[in-house]
Amino acid sequence: MDSPGRKGATVTPNARALAHPSREDIRVEGVLHALSDPIRLRIVRRLAGAGDELACSHFDLPVSKSTSTHHFRVLRENGVIRQVYRGTAKLSVLRAEDLDELFPGLLDSVLGAAGLQAKRLGED
Amino acid sequence: MDSPGRKGATVTPNARALAHPSREDIRVEGVLHALSDPIRLRIVRRLAGAGDELACSHFDLPVSKSTSTHHFRVLRENGVIRQVYRGTAKLSVLRAEDLDELFPGLLDSVLGAAGLQAKRLGED
Repeated sequence: MDSPGRKGATVTPNARALAHPSREDIRVEGVLHALSDPIRLRIVRRLAGAGDELACSHFDLPVSKSTSTHHFRVLRENGVIRQVYRGTAKLSVLRAEDLDELFPGLLDSVLGAAGLQAKRLGED
Repeated sequence: MDSPGRKGATVTPNARALAHPSREDIRVEGVLHALSDPIRLRIVRRLAGAGDELACSHFDLPVSKSTSTHHFRVLRENGVIRQVYRGTAKLSVLRAEDLDELFPGLLDSVLGAAGLQAKRLGED
């Protein structure tokens, strides 16, 4: 992809911009698929708890870096999170507003269900 | 598989009984996985609309019989539906009570999301 860039002392748009579905291209099947994995649910619960963007390094995941990158990509490509590069860090944030607009209550009920299950299984 | 039959007037437990997870073995990841497919979502929406058990023949699905059987099995093995044989018919019913007890509101929000999407995409 081209890096369009601005001239002078301004910030150059990041050529490493990552692909995201637009809101209208998000599908409920894709969102459910993205949320149907324990590691990805854990990432989403952490992001919901933070309520802000987090660097990948803030997630303590029991998987390799490449597996972790895969899980973040599945979440991003299905419209659950947005990822941006800032300097050398890749930051992730929940697309809560897009999801709530498309599927009211869905994200909250999944987060609630995952929370109840973690409590029931003594994982929290 | 054996066909147990009935002896006298008593009902013999059905040897063709299908395996189901107990309520406490149902996992949110498995439920979401089961619901993350368009055909399976369609089955679940149909069952929710019927509010009762339905024979497989009541679903007009654009897939082969073996693919259809696979989708019903994924739903059953992840605790979303219960299936029983009655004579030669295999009947399916949503495990709405089990799911609501474990994950309050989850099934309804998925059904709601799927309904909104079908409307938005003109599929209903």
